[in-house]
Amino acid sequence: MINIGILGYGTVGSGVVEVLNTNQESINKRAGEEINVKYVLDLRDFPGDPIQDKIVHDFETINNDPDVSIIVEVMGGVEPAYTFVKKALENGKSVATSNKELVAKHGSELLELARSKNINFLFEASVGGGIPIIRPLNSSLTADEIDEITGILNGTTNYILSKMTHEGLEFADVLKDAQDKGYAERNPEADVEGYDACRKIAILSSLAFGSQVDYEDIYTEGITKITASDIKYAKEMGKAIKLLASSKKVGDSFYAMVAPFLIGDEHPLYSVNNVFNGIFVHGNVLGDVMFYGSGAGKLPTASAVVADVVDAAKHMNRNIMTFWSSGKLELTDISKSERKFFVRISGGTEKLESIKALFGPVSVVAVPEMDDEFGFITEVISEAEFKEKVGQLEGVINMIRVQD
Amino acid sequence: MINIGILGYGTVGSGVVEVLNTNQESINKRAGEEINVKYVLDLRDFPGDPIQDKIVHDFETINNDPDVSIIVEVMGGVEPAYTFVKKALENGKSVATSNKELVAKHGSELLELARSKNINFLFEASVGGGIPIIRPLNSSLTADEIDEITGILNGTTNYILSKMTHEGLEFADVLKDAQDKGYAERNPEADVEGYDACRKIAILSSLAFGSQVDYEDIYTEGITKITASDIKYAKEMGKAIKLLASSKKVGDSFYAMVAPFLIGDEHPLYSVNNVFNGIFVHGNVLGDVMFYGSGAGKLPTASAVVADVVDAAKHMNRNIMTFWSSGKLELTDISKSERKFFVRISGGTEKLESIKALFGPVSVVAVPEMDDEFGFITEVISEAEFKEKVGQLEGVINMIRVQD
Repeated sequence: MINIGILGYGTVGSGVVEVLNTNQESINKRAGEEINVKYVLDLRDFPGDPIQDKIVHDFETINNDPDVSIIVEVMGGVEPAYTFVKKALENGKSVATSNKELVAKHGSELLELARSKNINFLFEASVGGGIPIIRPLNSSLTADEIDEITGILNGTTNYILSKMTHEGLEFADVLKDAQDKGYAERNPEADVEGYDACRKIAILSSLAFGSQVDYEDIYTEGITKITASDIKYAKEMGKAIKLLASSKKVGDSFYAMVAPFLIGDEHPLYSVNNVFNGIFVHGNVLGDVMFYGSGAGKLPTASAVVADVVDAAKHMNRNIMTFWSSGKLELTDISKSERKFFVRISGGTEKLESIKALFGPVSVVAVPEMDDEFGFITEVISEAEFKEKVGQLEGVINMIRVQD
Repeated sequence: MINIGILGYGTVGSGVVEVLNTNQESINKRAGEEINVKYVLDLRDFPGDPIQDKIVHDFETINNDPDVSIIVEVMGGVEPAYTFVKKALENGKSVATSNKELVAKHGSELLELARSKNINFLFEASVGGGIPIIRPLNSSLTADEIDEITGILNGTTNYILSKMTHEGLEFADVLKDAQDKGYAERNPEADVEGYDACRKIAILSSLAFGSQVDYEDIYTEGITKITASDIKYAKEMGKAIKLLASSKKVGDSFYAMVAPFLIGDEHPLYSVNNVFNGIFVHGNVLGDVMFYGSGAGKLPTASAVVADVVDAAKHMNRNIMTFWSSGKLELTDISKSERKFFVRISGGTEKLESIKALFGPVSVVAVPEMDDEFGFITEVISEAEFKEKVGQLEGVINMIRVQD
């Protein structure tokens, strides 16, 4: 029997208990031993809940029990999660976590600590909820040099953009609806400003490139400036607006950013709608692959956590090699990265001459009902060059990057 | 240094050599040791090819060399691959293969043999080319009871159907074009009759359900009867026609089949076009996930083979547990499986009364330019009931199953 302690009995924590109960037989078979929840750490009590007998309020009760060999950390936030996880690993207990803040901030250190103890620090659920992406990056795509990871990594913003697209609504109205339905937090900043996606792409980039990508270094822009009018243009062009978290290797430079992008219907991420996540990966020999599924939610996330528990159980006293060194990967400033840009500008097409004088050839887009403005897409240029040139134009309403 | 022997220097075999050369440094780092190709078995010689010095014509030269610890089998076909792989495993050498015929026919036996020798039999490349699907099923989706796997598993037929859809062409014309381009074999039977997809879904089903699914038991229908007219109806309904290989657990029954289906644009497989493959998996706690990518081709397939070589190198003398018992899984006859059906029928809608008398409520579909016929979609009924009822109708032109 393998005893586990769960830190946190919130949404994911109670999901982990539910998944273990629901699929007990097959999980035990795959783990090779019975998985038993011995403790659940929470500040609260849960009278009437079958878990109540296992509730403890002191982490040390769990950490000091030699019978506990795997800790599930599903509290979220950096502290006290970091302190608890570090103590558990130092104490020889493997850890499975869903905590993206913890992994983005301290992943390489905790992996190194687990390696030194010949145990495991696993975090499949920290990115993409139930979608297998961490383990495939670490143990399936090993023959490739990954040169791009681009993901729709935040379900809340994807739901908002999908609903704006399908119903022609404005951001604020859809956000309110999402909050009422529980798809968005009362304080939605982490989602709508892109901070959540930023931490997740930092984790994926660190794994893909093998060195620490600090999330603070990643240029991050949210979706709060996207309007119903922008989406009319997108539809006119047969494109969709998605919040993409992307990192790319171009020559010897590494770029990472989070921002809204226009993507065309030939891109596999185009049809990732609503609360779903999609993660597109390009390898130098593999070509394109994409992973798609529920990026959040109680049971999908718990499914990934429990899969990590099974893996930890199958690898007691044997470290699963993970390539994420603590050496910092220096990102190149995105001002040097190159792409096409979409610009909306007020006025009539008499402005086109001066636009072409600045940008060279552009594709013009007009939405029939919006006759006091128009849009255009530039050729591929650098962020710096775009910024410099667009600054010379008068009447710019909005700009959105284009993913080809 | 880990020495490997490659059986077969065809498309995939030469791809394996190319991938190992291209990404040598990162592959060796991930494997933990240098991977060295010591032998390549082929009937032919390759004068001028750098591999020529390593070419041998006798399998026993490789198998008798104690320095070789991993065998790559990329010959295809059941024999002599089966004999060679079995001998290699008996001799304590791990095997990585891309051979779906071999895995579908002898997978459980070869896995058991590898387990008894504490080595590995790996076959990521046998399904979905470069898409990671075998390893995720085996080591990521371990917290779930998988109740459905539905895949577009054959790139050739998906290319043909995509081209028929985009260009309004007939099957025979597109097949000829695909043959000219090298996307389809001169003898296209294995692809267009669904036999290739059948072997692949047999492998995935055996892994998902943990018991041997014999491919001979799987009802298999190809795409040769799909016409340009059928595709006009599909477009009219906002659906696409795809060759789906599917297995489902419904209650205590397991169903598996390969056939063309109509799928709607809300389904993640709808936008898997051209030579790409997509594999949709539903788990009881995970919900929906999909894996997408290049399902064939020299380098993507070789990427998956080399990833297996890396995994074998990381697990020398340590078996990776794989749940695929030799106990046979009895499939339920598909006559009991239930779904909606689309039917095209000649004549006018005066026939509707008798159709409704037989099937109950149906949705009628008409394509404007085709006025001497119409189509309808039934409610959900069993295959047996559908067959019995549709047999009573006169003027049936074609029928296609509907995937909701």
